[in-house]
Amino acid sequence: MPRKPKKGKPTGKIRIIPLGGLGEIGKNMTVIEYENDMIVVDCGLGFPDDDMPGIDLVIPDITYLESNRDRIRGVFLTHGHEDHIGAVPYLLRSLNPPIYGTPLTLGIIKNKLEEHILPHTPKLCAVNAGARVKVGEMEVEFIHVNHSIADACALAIRTPLGTIVHTGDFKLDTSPIDGEMMDIVRLGELGREGVLMLLCESTNAERPGNTPSERKVGSSLEYIFSTHPKKRIIIATFSSNVHRVQQIIDTSARHGRKVAITGRSMINIVNAAIELGYMKVPRGVLVDINDIKRFKPSELTLVTTGSQGEPMSALYRMAFSDHSQVSLDANDLVVLSASAIPGNEKLVGRIINELSRNDVEVLHDAVVEVHVSGHACQEELKLMHALVKPQYFMPIHGEARHLIANRDLACYMGMSLPNIFLSEIGKVLEIDASGARWAGTVPAGKILVDGYGVGDVGNIVLRDRRHLAQDGLIVVVATVDTEERMIVSGPDIVSRGFVYVREAEDMMEEARQIAYEALLDALESGDRVDRMQIKKYVKDDLTRYLYAKTKRKPMILPVIMNV
Amino acid sequence: MPRKPKKGKPTGKIRIIPLGGLGEIGKNMTVIEYENDMIVVDCGLGFPDDDMPGIDLVIPDITYLESNRDRIRGVFLTHGHEDHIGAVPYLLRSLNPPIYGTPLTLGIIKNKLEEHILPHTPKLCAVNAGARVKVGEMEVEFIHVNHSIADACALAIRTPLGTIVHTGDFKLDTSPIDGEMMDIVRLGELGREGVLMLLCESTNAERPGNTPSERKVGSSLEYIFSTHPKKRIIIATFSSNVHRVQQIIDTSARHGRKVAITGRSMINIVNAAIELGYMKVPRGVLVDINDIKRFKPSELTLVTTGSQGEPMSALYRMAFSDHSQVSLDANDLVVLSASAIPGNEKLVGRIINELSRNDVEVLHDAVVEVHVSGHACQEELKLMHALVKPQYFMPIHGEARHLIANRDLACYMGMSLPNIFLSEIGKVLEIDASGARWAGTVPAGKILVDGYGVGDVGNIVLRDRRHLAQDGLIVVVATVDTEERMIVSGPDIVSRGFVYVREAEDMMEEARQIAYEALLDALESGDRVDRMQIKKYVKDDLTRYLYAKTKRKPMILPVIMNV
Repeated sequence: MPRKPKKGKPTGKIRIIPLGGLGEIGKNMTVIEYENDMIVVDCGLGFPDDDMPGIDLVIPDITYLESNRDRIRGVFLTHGHEDHIGAVPYLLRSLNPPIYGTPLTLGIIKNKLEEHILPHTPKLCAVNAGARVKVGEMEVEFIHVNHSIADACALAIRTPLGTIVHTGDFKLDTSPIDGEMMDIVRLGELGREGVLMLLCESTNAERPGNTPSERKVGSSLEYIFSTHPKKRIIIATFSSNVHRVQQIIDTSARHGRKVAITGRSMINIVNAAIELGYMKVPRGVLVDINDIKRFKPSELTLVTTGSQGEPMSALYRMAFSDHSQVSLDANDLVVLSASAIPGNEKLVGRIINELSRNDVEVLHDAVVEVHVSGHACQEELKLMHALVKPQYFMPIHGEARHLIANRDLACYMGMSLPNIFLSEIGKVLEIDASGARWAGTVPAGKILVDGYGVGDVGNIVLRDRRHLAQDGLIVVVATVDTEERMIVSGPDIVSRGFVYVREAEDMMEEARQIAYEALLDALESGDRVDRMQIKKYVKDDLTRYLYAKTKRKPMILPVIMNV
Repeated sequence: MPRKPKKGKPTGKIRIIPLGGLGEIGKNMTVIEYENDMIVVDCGLGFPDDDMPGIDLVIPDITYLESNRDRIRGVFLTHGHEDHIGAVPYLLRSLNPPIYGTPLTLGIIKNKLEEHILPHTPKLCAVNAGARVKVGEMEVEFIHVNHSIADACALAIRTPLGTIVHTGDFKLDTSPIDGEMMDIVRLGELGREGVLMLLCESTNAERPGNTPSERKVGSSLEYIFSTHPKKRIIIATFSSNVHRVQQIIDTSARHGRKVAITGRSMINIVNAAIELGYMKVPRGVLVDINDIKRFKPSELTLVTTGSQGEPMSALYRMAFSDHSQVSLDANDLVVLSASAIPGNEKLVGRIINELSRNDVEVLHDAVVEVHVSGHACQEELKLMHALVKPQYFMPIHGEARHLIANRDLACYMGMSLPNIFLSEIGKVLEIDASGARWAGTVPAGKILVDGYGVGDVGNIVLRDRRHLAQDGLIVVVATVDTEERMIVSGPDIVSRGFVYVREAEDMMEEARQIAYEALLDALESGDRVDRMQIKKYVKDDLTRYLYAKTKRKPMILPVIMNV
């Protein structure tokens, strides 16, 4: 039962603070506060940009949470995708709030947490769609939505000042695989009661129309299986797309095929989904990947990771003849049941080329409709507005272009611009009884994860890596006597990544000569000689010489020892 | 007039050798020989892959041409795109054959050659579509085709053994901007006479249907101009797409707008095209970019480079407020009249985001049809087959996936597999009176251009650059006395791109200690101590320590000096 609003205007304040996911794709995280109570919606990771060489992951800066640890009542996860839950293990290093999510979401988290050593036992609290969780003066209701992972939810967050709806990631699927359409009735009820603020995802806000149903992929699979009765069929998809895998299993069973699963994350998630009842596998259909030799190609479907072309994924290893159980040839059909995430096009292309070279037939989403998006297109976003009818609106989850397209849709739906808040990470929006307004900022940003290091690679280190990648490195080593103003030994020159030295011996010898003269100049000049000054002389002269000679600017690293 | 075939079977041999453009996108180059006569079709460059940091361009290895310099009768250029002409300046460093091409193609080459210092005056020979050039025992005929640049041609190469048709890049445009449809009549005549071999481009061989006419973009532009009468319109496109620019100028003139051109390559090509008569500009429509302040937004169109998001391009500088004549705001509409070349999606996205942030409206090809491809889709490729009816077929210009899709189309058109030759660069196909067969290989590959260096960056240098980019670098410097087996000074440790040193002082000190002990171990072990061995000790121990500590493997560069 919705709580009746209290008599009289409440005097408290709501604060809405995105810590990730605005102006970027991934690392979604939003803080919502009412007075002294604070909740966190999602805790995702992002993937590094091209200009972050060597970086494994990007997570949100949670300084703000750490300095408000006593106010955090809980982390609420909308669904189990990495960009919504991937930073949970890092958050748990310094904080230990209760974590609420649906059973599949928490099942995936548990898997992840096994790879991390944590200071405390995490407090995972499973809830189902429809559940409400009381957190201080707020109450959070989980509302079922459709998405490319099962068990996804939007959240309705009640505060004394009014209700905030956070859509999470969603689409409207009127014929979903699990039979459960997004709970538009509940969203409509909330809209009738009155919604103060809608936070709505923006991923597909530029795309007109409706996102097709997941079932569309089912018909494509049916067609593919019917037209390739002799071939072994290998299907790569996102491991978290439980319903996609369900459809592959169902189609295989109908066509008398066994299904083998390969790829670590695929095996993990399929097991978790079966265990938790999200996936139903007819008896005898699943076979172990080690047993596939017992079946003819026409009797087999393989489900694999690697739809993004990830090197070391199962599909990549199959394509490059490096998979221990599967080698592919003209008897195989590979279906890429996914679209390439921007930035991965070339990786995916590499696999398609290698498969083509080996006469393996490949079907991908440019040729057959073997993938549908998990995100709402414009008509679904408009439906969300029509149901929720919010007083205020903030587009979330997307780059600037997506947020702005979502803003424009809100305008089209009749909202006035002053009621729409285009925010950015760290920016505070405050709402009280008299209205909504910007209220400063809190620390926010990207924390880079590289190996075990969290945050120890920053802009300076990245700049050096980019510089080294661009033109390589020259190390100049010399021992000098700054008292006697003479060179004791060296200079020696070592280069890496600059030029193939055996074919550039003359230039390297000239460079050594230039370094030698720069050292002498430095030692003989001015009143006082220090190592900083010597380094500067060497660096400047060598940079100038090498640029004139090669039009390259390698990093020059003088190491000057003083006796 | 086609020459009559000689009486009796000729005893000579044709050899067809791709030196670039097969199994890759770009650097198109094909060698065709009849006995002692050799011609080269196209001489293009490619762009570096992600795993080639610091590389500017990739050009074909022309070792084979250099060792057959006396047999080269000419280079024949099909059109003026970089991937067909970009390596000409590099070829001219060591060779100086006559270069044949249509006037626009040679006009673009002349522009390029001004940036290079060449040992000889190049021999540029302008020919028009329809022209025939006699080269030894061969004759090359230029045949007009449609493409995304004006003045593009296919080639019919007659040899005593029969005719080879090389399509170059093409599409069929029944309503082209210059009124000249591809000369399908001539191709059909050749087909009737009998064509021995078809070399056909494969870029869009995976795409069903027909590529739309360039005129489709004209209608979209008309619609955009009509619905944005108040805004200044900025259109980014490929500078070489002369017909696109013509349509922008025409539409602007119709809507009473002046047109200003910005971006160096755009200015160069538009000037060349006007001069050579490929573009017709109504009097008074073009204005200098420095004079645009005199006009209202509604009176102006700007045509600019930067449609691929290239940093430093005119559009990039406009977007990031770094263009000296143009700053953009809510009164501007930016049209990206191009599609992102694979690999450039993120760069293009960066510009769209920045423009969106500044309230500049952006239209791109996902939203309106403001771009069409220049390459034949499946129906056009099938038409080519139906016209030319070749005895043998070799798909060219494309990655493996495209070549194979093109092969499959040829099969669909009734060719038998043994008559289709899937080649690769350096592979020799020999044809004589008794048939066609593989005949070994010649040197072929990628030559990397980095600054002034051509070929001085190879796999070792690239591997080092990638390693340095991934995890950075640790330099260990020490002076030792191998006679006395003692450390004289050091070890000192310098790192770059590894970790932010100020926050990792303990680890760096421990690393120094490890290096110290490794030095001692090395000096004290075995009979003989040499610097190689000392380096190995230091490298191994430090690698092990740092990996355990950080899960990173920086490059370790020990510099050991012996007194």
